[in-house]
Order: sequence, then C-alpha cells, then structure tokens
Amino acid sequence: MLWFMFDLLELRERYQRNLFDSVIPFWLNHSLDLECGGQLNCLTRDGRVYDSRKYVWMMGRAVWMFSRLYNQVERRQEWLDAAHSILEFLLRHARDAEGRCYFSVTRDGRPVFFQRKPYAAFFLALALIEYSKTGAPAEGYIEQAKELFRLIREWIDNATPLGRPHLPGQTPCRQLADVMVIASLALELHEVEPEANYVRILENCWSDARAHWLPEKRTLLENLPLDGSDYRESPVTRQLCPGSAMEVAWMLWHSLEKRNAETPENVRFLLDVMEGSLEFGWDKDYGGLYYFLDSEGFPAQQLEANMKLWWPHTEAIVALTLAYSKTKDPRWLTWLERIDEYTFRTFVDWEHGEWLGYCDRRGAPALDLKGGPYKGFFHVPRALLFSMRRLDTVIS
Amino acid sequence: MLWFMFDLLELRERYQRNLFDSVIPFWLNHSLDLECGGQLNCLTRDGRVYDSRKYVWMMGRAVWMFSRLYNQVERRQEWLDAAHSILEFLLRHARDAEGRCYFSVTRDGRPVFFQRKPYAAFFLALALIEYSKTGAPAEGYIEQAKELFRLIREWIDNATPLGRPHLPGQTPCRQLADVMVIASLALELHEVEPEANYVRILENCWSDARAHWLPEKRTLLENLPLDGSDYRESPVTRQLCPGSAMEVAWMLWHSLEKRNAETPENVRFLLDVMEGSLEFGWDKDYGGLYYFLDSEGFPAQQLEANMKLWWPHTEAIVALTLAYSKTKDPRWLTWLERIDEYTFRTFVDWEHGEWLGYCDRRGAPALDLKGGPYKGFFHVPRALLFSMRRLDTVIS
Repeated sequence: MLWFMFDLLELRERYQRNLFDSVIPFWLNHSLDLECGGQLNCLTRDGRVYDSRKYVWMMGRAVWMFSRLYNQVERRQEWLDAAHSILEFLLRHARDAEGRCYFSVTRDGRPVFFQRKPYAAFFLALALIEYSKTGAPAEGYIEQAKELFRLIREWIDNATPLGRPHLPGQTPCRQLADVMVIASLALELHEVEPEANYVRILENCWSDARAHWLPEKRTLLENLPLDGSDYRESPVTRQLCPGSAMEVAWMLWHSLEKRNAETPENVRFLLDVMEGSLEFGWDKDYGGLYYFLDSEGFPAQQLEANMKLWWPHTEAIVALTLAYSKTKDPRWLTWLERIDEYTFRTFVDWEHGEWLGYCDRRGAPALDLKGGPYKGFFHVPRALLFSMRRLDTVIS
Repeated sequence: MLWFMFDLLELRERYQRNLFDSVIPFWLNHSLDLECGGQLNCLTRDGRVYDSRKYVWMMGRAVWMFSRLYNQVERRQEWLDAAHSILEFLLRHARDAEGRCYFSVTRDGRPVFFQRKPYAAFFLALALIEYSKTGAPAEGYIEQAKELFRLIREWIDNATPLGRPHLPGQTPCRQLADVMVIASLALELHEVEPEANYVRILENCWSDARAHWLPEKRTLLENLPLDGSDYRESPVTRQLCPGSAMEVAWMLWHSLEKRNAETPENVRFLLDVMEGSLEFGWDKDYGGLYYFLDSEGFPAQQLEANMKLWWPHTEAIVALTLAYSKTKDPRWLTWLERIDEYTFRTFVDWEHGEWLGYCDRRGAPALDLKGGPYKGFFHVPRALLFSMRRLDTVIS
C-alpha cells in the first residue's frame, strides 16, 4: 500500500505541474484575441495562429474550463478575464436569428459555417452555467442556458430545424453523445438549481445509457437502434468508441453521486463498461486506445478509426482515477499506469507545452497542432483537474 | 529506347491483367444486388457486404465505368446488364421531389442521407450520358443529364437549395473540384452532342483552372479565393491535394484535345502542374503521395491528411501515361515508374483481387476494405483502362 501511495502522490504532482505550468499558460499566452475578444483556437505546436476562424464548440468549452478553474481552484483574475472575454464574444456572435448556434465565425464574428448538430449550443450552455457561478455579473445567463437546454433536447428528438429532417430510410437511433449532453447539462444545472426535475432527467439518462450496453464486448454502443433492429446490421449501430464510453462512464458516476445512487450494482455496471472498453479498445500491437472500432470486426466507417487521439486517453485517465478512488481495487491502478504512461509518452509536448492531439496508430504525430476546430482548452485541463481532485481523496 | 519499350509493354500487360482478371471480376462477383437491383458497394477485403446502404456517388460512377467498358473495350452483355441494373435503381430511388440527389439510400431504396453538395447529381449525370451511348434503350436520358448539368451549375453558384446558404463570413471561393465537374460533364456531353456551347464551357474551365495556379509550389489551389484575399490567410485556401491536381491536369488535357488546343504553352502549363504536384506531394520519407497538404506548411485541416489513399495514385498514373505518350520525355517515365512501383506494392491486393484504398503514412492498411461510401468501381478501373489506351499509342 505504501508503494501505491508514493506513486499516486508523484502522479498527482505531475498532473498539477502539467496543468498549471504547461497547459494553462499555453492557452493564456497564445489563444486570447486581445483585439476582437474571444479566442483564436487554431494553434500550431509552438502557439502560432494558423486559422483565424473561431469555433463555437471550442470557445464554449474554454469558457467552461476557465470558469471552473476560477470556481474550484483559485480566484485568479486572469482566468475570469479569459472566460469573460470569450463568453462576451459568444453572446454577441454565436447565435442566429432563430437561436441556433453557428459552428464557426470569422475573427470579428461573422458567421462562416452551420453544423446540422446541437453541440455548439451545448457548449454555449455549459459556458453560461459555469460562468454564472463565478459571481461576476451574469444577469439572465442561467435562463439562457435553460432555454438552450430545452432547444437542444428538442433538436435531439427532431433535427429538422437544424436542416436535417428525418428521412424514411434512416434507422431511428439514440446517440450515446446525446445521452451525455443531456446528463452533463442536467448535472451542471442541478448545481445552480437543485430541483428534482434534473434528478429525474439524470435517472432517465442512466436507464438510457444502460440500454446501450453490449454484453459481448462489455462496452456501450455509440448508436442504439430504437426500432428493435439488430445492431449488427449496420456499421452505424456497430460503431464503438472506447473514449466515448469512458467519458460516459465517469459522467454517469458523477450522476450517481448526485443522486446518492452508488449502489453496488450501479457501480458494477460502470466498472464493467470501463474494463470492457479498455480491453476492447486497447491496441495490443502499438499501445493506446483506438478511436473507432466496429463491434463485429468489419472495417470502421472513419478514415481516422485506427489513429490515436488525445481525448480518449484523457477520458480514460478521468475514469480510472475515479474508479480507483472509489474502489481502491489495484486493477484500476494497473490500467491507469498503462494509460498514463502511453499518454504522457505520446501526446505531452515537453518542448512547447500542452499536448499534441492527433497521432497515427503507432503514436507518431499526424497533425502537428495544439488547437484545431475540435481540440481546444477542454479535455486536457479537465482531465488533469478532475484526476488531481480524485487522487487527493486517496492520498489525504 | 528499346529498354523503355520493353518496360512499357510489360506495364500495359500488367494493367490489362489487373483490370480484367482482378478488378472487374471482384465487382461483378461481389457487388451486384440480384434481389433489389443496384449495387452493394461496401465490401470487405474478401468481398463480403458490411453495409447494405447504397451510395449514389458510387452507383453513378459504376454505371459510367461498366458502360464505358462496354462502349470502348468489348460489347460484353454482363457489363451492360450491370450498368442497366444500377442505373434503373438510381432512376427509381436517387432523386427527391425537388430533383436533388440523395447521398445514400437503403438496400431497397428508401432515402437515408442528404449531402449539402452537388456531387451525387454529378455522378448520376455521368451515368446517364455514358449509358446512353451503349445503344440500349435510353429514352430521355440525355435530356435528364442536361437538366442535371444545369442544376449542378446553379448549385455550384448557390448551394442554398441544397441547404447551405451563403453566410456573410464565408470567403467566396471556387473549388477546383467544381471546375472538374463542369469540365467533365461538358466533355461527356460534347461526345453525344458536339455543340459549340460545350467547347465554350471547356474554354471557361481552362481559364478558371489556370487561375488556381500557385507558382511557388507549381500546383493548383483546391479553393481559390474570389474576393481578392490572400490565399495564405486561411487553411481553406492554403489547402493542396496532389491527387486532385493530377486528376484535373489529365482531364484538362482531354479538353485541349477536344478543343484542338494542345499548344506548347497550354501543354507546358499542364506538365508544370503535374511535375510540381508530384514534387510537392511526394512523401520523401515513406514514399507515396500525401492526401492533403497546407501550402505554407501549417497543420492540414483533415485528420487523414498524411494518409496514403489509392486514388491520388491512380490519377497520377493516368496523368503520367498521358504526359509520356504525348511528349516522349523520359522524365515522365521516371515518375511513372516510381508511382507505379509504390502503388502496386501498397494498394493492389494479390490475394482477393481489387485494391485496398486507405493506408497510413507508412503504407500499412488503415481500413481493410475494398469498397466504401467513397471507394467503388471507378478510379482503379478508369485509371487502368485510360493508361492502357495511352500506352497503346506509344507501343504500337
């Protein structure tokens, strides 16, 4: 036991150093747009801007993260200022006349692209909620977040207003990502308004997610057919994403904490998802977690399926520090050590700070970037912060 | 010179064997849907169907290819039957009430997905034109293709009817793919209706494509800004795709032949595009042509940018056999030998026939498939057929 304690202390210190000495400074130094407000998110390895478009997903996530640091770590003015500048920009430029959110805008806020998905709105809502907890003026922000939550749930059921009507040949599916979106917003809104309604939503998310369970692989289906069709009939419903399953697993555990529902059976389910996803997702030849897999071994749909991305690994670290802190079962430390070693060897940039995001199957960088339309100030700092806090509960 | 002749004869024979003994049988044996008509395009390495959805791009291309083989090689009934079955399916199921084309439909033809792009309509038009040359009943097919051509040109100028209105922050751009689409349809329609109008369209395509010339890299920009902005300002306009530049180069050469415009200056331009694209696109460490590159060396936008795909290599082979057959300059044979050696070593499947499509930077298969939503019976057989015919002009 003493041996574990020592290792975990070292691990916690390493996560703290990486977060505060490398990751946060990289984004504070390079990404804030002092001229137009908001955040320039597309950054080269050494922090130069290579695309002046601004991405609503990424800015919403950054507001959430800077606000969370301010709320839970230390009331540093520069974090609040960053969150404020980006959120102001979003409130001016992110939404169209119908209340939908753009995917990207120009540096000065003119709309560039509209995605037929509800996720830009999701990250704006997350931003509004966490910022409203800072104590800075946030008049009407929670109301706006609740309105977005209502719209997002409508769009998940019917994407016609986003330009994606249901077509008769589509298999009706529930996406695991949508369960996570709803659970995440219910968790965050319950923090500011502890109403029974959010607990009920979390209970529904729990039973929805359980329905995605795939016993043969001990993981969760990304897309669950809702018409009773066999998931093995289509690559859409055969799709697995170990990183997504790990992220859902830790978030559902947060919802169990919130609902005082950490029963042995519920915890067992989440541990099974974690272990199954890691065993199925781990590349036995080159290490690391695959991005996408087909449950039956058919070719995956995505060209990038066998690449190694940073975020499935950050989500695995969050899940494993949580699993160990709750169970003290050394099997989760064994997995944590393996994932942590691979992750820090493959993604962490010791020269310029922050992490690389996109490596090939063998772990060689495929895109030499720190920030892009889908990589920003979110998964890495969130994982380091959440893991530090869970490790604290074991160490102290 | 004798040494070259020998090599080219061997090369031509190898292309012929690959086309007739490997590629065509693979698709005839595995892809035709004898029950519902049409083509099941998503095939594993050994020819099993892993996705029963049918893809309109792929079916249009297959109709074109089977018809072209019937029209130019031999009047084999099984080729005509394949073209007929797939085209009938498309005519029943590919278009919606407004005349737009779906991207994918179910096995029995119910719509699944609609892409906000004009390319499904483009491949349907190609199919209609080539099939109408077979002599089989094709009442109104050319009229339908001309109507599609008109719609496609409208959608290229204004994609609002496809669900993609112009947003104020978008840099107005011309896509090289759209120049190719228009040139390709004008070339094909001129075959059936040799009208001056199509020649004028080809002349416009020529000057449009010339405007994409990037002298610093001796290649063509994928997306040319039309508002006078500097192409270096955005990753969209910095994007290069060596395979696309090679495809455009050979197609423009076909248009020069059609227009009797193979002047030394025009030919020089196309040869410059070919040489520059190959020099810039070739991976000096692992061989093969990159899929996407940023002209200024910034990170590419696509996760798959450094992967090696089959089709840039097929297009390079078409371009190089054409360049050598026209110029007899051995520099094109040197490049052809290099590309051909890499291509046959990396993509050709000697065990199950046909070619693999998606390899990683080192040339290892990333997706173990023969057919997918974007890989079908098109680039490989077209390249082998076109190259054989060009080599014939040198050998004989």
